[in-house]
Amino acid sequence: MRVSIIRRAHFNAAHRLHNQEWSDEKNLKVFGLCNSPNYHGHNYDMEVKLTGETDPVTGYLYDLKDLSDLIKAEIEDRFDHKNLNLDTEEFKDLNPTTENLVYVIYNILREKIAPEYDIKIRLWETARNSVEYPADS
Amino acid sequence: MRVSIIRRAHFNAAHRLHNQEWSDEKNLKVFGLCNSPNYHGHNYDMEVKLTGETDPVTGYLYDLKDLSDLIKAEIEDRFDHKNLNLDTEEFKDLNPTTENLVYVIYNILREKIAPEYDIKIRLWETARNSVEYPADS
Amino acid sequence: MRVSIIRRAHFNAAHRLHNQEWSDEKNLKVFGLCNSPNYHGHNYDMEVKLTGETDPVTGYLYDLKDLSDLIKAEIEDRFDHKNLNLDTEEFKDLNPTTENLVYVIYNILREKIAPEYDIKIRLWETARNSVEYPADS
Amino acid sequence: MRVSIIRRAHFNAAHRLHNQEWSDEKNLKVFGLCNSPNYHGHNYDMEVKLTGETDPVTGYLYDLKDLSDLIKAEIEDRFDHKNLNLDTEEFKDLNPTTENLVYVIYNILREKIAPEYDIKIRLWETARNSVEYPADS
Amino acid sequence: MRVSIIRRAHFNAAHRLHNQEWSDEKNLKVFGLCNSPNYHGHNYDMEVKLTGETDPVTGYLYDLKDLSDLIKAEIEDRFDHKNLNLDTEEFKDLNPTTENLVYVIYNILREKIAPEYDIKIRLWETARNSVEYPADS
Amino acid sequence: MRVSIIRRAHFNAAHRLHNQEWSDEKNLKVFGLCNSPNYHGHNYDMEVKLTGETDPVTGYLYDLKDLSDLIKAEIEDRFDHKNLNLDTEEFKDLNPTTENLVYVIYNILREKIAPEYDIKIRLWETARNSVEYPADS
Repeated sequence: MRVSIIRRAHFNAAHRLHNQEWSDEKNLKVFGLCNSPNYHGHNYDMEVKLTGETDPVTGYLYDLKDLSDLIKAEIEDRFDHKNLNLDTEEFKDLNPTTENLVYVIYNILREKIAPEYDIKIRLWETARNSVEYPADS
Repeated sequence: MRVSIIRRAHFNAAHRLHNQEWSDEKNLKVFGLCNSPNYHGHNYDMEVKLTGETDPVTGYLYDLKDLSDLIKAEIEDRFDHKNLNLDTEEFKDLNPTTENLVYVIYNILREKIAPEYDIKIRLWETARNSVEYPADS
Repeated sequence: MRVSIIRRAHFNAAHRLHNQEWSDEKNLKVFGLCNSPNYHGHNYDMEVKLTGETDPVTGYLYDLKDLSDLIKAEIEDRFDHKNLNLDTEEFKDLNPTTENLVYVIYNILREKIAPEYDIKIRLWETARNSVEYPADS
Repeated sequence: MRVSIIRRAHFNAAHRLHNQEWSDEKNLKVFGLCNSPNYHGHNYDMEVKLTGETDPVTGYLYDLKDLSDLIKAEIEDRFDHKNLNLDTEEFKDLNPTTENLVYVIYNILREKIAPEYDIKIRLWETARNSVEYPADS
Repeated sequence: MRVSIIRRAHFNAAHRLHNQEWSDEKNLKVFGLCNSPNYHGHNYDMEVKLTGETDPVTGYLYDLKDLSDLIKAEIEDRFDHKNLNLDTEEFKDLNPTTENLVYVIYNILREKIAPEYDIKIRLWETARNSVEYPADS
Repeated sequence: MRVSIIRRAHFNAAHRLHNQEWSDEKNLKVFGLCNSPNYHGHNYDMEVKLTGETDPVTGYLYDLKDLSDLIKAEIEDRFDHKNLNLDTEEFKDLNPTTENLVYVIYNILREKIAPEYDIKIRLWETARNSVEYPADS
């Protein structure tokens, strides 16, 4: 009995899209408003999906309190009320696009969750824009 | 032309997570607040997804009125305004976790929907917690 | 500068609508499915609205962390994962309709929040049904 | 690093489900209220999902401004505030069911988006009914 | 104990904004896309709010099943899957703007609901545009 | 016929809560995470409500395209993708709490909208926290 459970979480952060090797003109042309020099920010909504075999004794795939505590300790405490570019190790040299952010979140959780569970992350930067990793196929 | 249609429905039910073979202490430790002895409850939201080939004459994969009537007769009338532990056959000896509930719903609908349609169920216990069965892979 | 702040919270509870002085027939006739004997349940969503004068030094009407802690201590811890009829003092002799529940919540918070703040509560029993107290006029 | 980005958009349109080769009685029997002769309408919500490899230089899968402009030019300008049956080439001889509409939208975008990106469309006709094309499997 | 209850409902309809006494040019100038000649449509969401005194015996302000049946009989059956301009008496000579529609709905319900209940209607034409009648002050 | 129309809009911005006359310790104590030195950010959702008399010739209270253009020009272009503390005149010397932000937005729009329309603003900083100005009473 292979199921997926999905836990929703969120954090609020500032960021700026910028490639340090480009001129200001090129950055503005490629990233537009998202290159705004003093940062802007988002309420990020996130779904963490785990897939695996349900434990027949508990009827649980994974204890949701454990999952929610893990997301708080590893993702929310790291990124919530932070400036992604200035306050985090992960984006010192990586452009904080939603694509890169979802990839970073996946890798942080991948190390903390046992390998028998598949993981997928969906991250909303706004109500209209979201990214999923890994892709379905 | 292989498409999926998704119909959203909901029901309101009480339940309690409990393993009858365990002590009260162990039940409380594993299930926490969800083991509360006099039950608690949820507004369950559900998406039923059918996948198959569109009928070129009607342009329908499946008549949505038929699907909605089927969900009402087989799922809503069975679980809505019920105590899952006390009022249903399905959970007499099965712990009503969301994982088990989504599996039960899948099997009820699987018997009533022609085999040329694949079925997938997503069930939200709260706005933040949901389960999907069968898993994507 | 008179403003309102609105904080959203939620809890999950079981209940049953029942008037102990009526026959079973009359209870069923008046309360229908909501009279189901073994209880059913809901994810209650709640908005607590405070109205008053903003403090010009902080720019706050009321510290939202304090408000959120108060709602947790006084409302969520009291009602979340509970059976309203069996587990709470407030509904020992009071029918747990949404009207009565919103009135009870208002009175609990009214005692804990300084009188210079007006309070209004909106409570959703389901996505389609909600109640507000006190009424606008 | 294979990711998916999802962009949400919407348009408002009128339509009527009708098979021109059938009698009025048969149309009414099969399509019910949706066959109402003077049309009815919907706020269509749409998610366009692109899957491919992130560009390591920009950290983008696809420029979201380009995607949003493309959706506006090709889908919103074509269908928004239109009568699908009377005002569009696509549904002159095709019944505007949600299944057919999602297939039409897919094919319009497929021609405009480079083949290294996979495309999937999800279209909501109402909050409770939606269709996805192509299906997951 | 004066409370308000709010019931949410919806219907799907086609319409066109048009003043029959104006030229086509003026209609297009004033109403823009909403004047599109072959109609367009919306999923209308509606909240009906009743305000009054709770009955101390039932704990109800108004039976929600009665309210929901009334909304179905008087509003949904009248407007759902209809063309507001062509299929309804109410908009034969009245422009179906959201302002006029909310006023019409208010007056239909006002005649069917006892005068001790105040009524307020909020109607969403899209997720971003809504109208309320009567106004708060 | 006095009605209200409500238009929803949004913008994404960075900010930091800070009182320049206080020590760092006091700022941290009062504003907590919101005092984070390098800013954080939000997707702000906003409802602008206008109340007045419907024009009987158009059936409009206020042209929604005009209102939406005004909100874009005066609010979105000013605050979207900006750092409220560093990039705006309005918050040079004013702490960008949601209470102060809603008051600033009200005053900007109040100057641009004719006085026969009452204005009320509701602003969501997150899905759980919002502020309304002016207050209902």
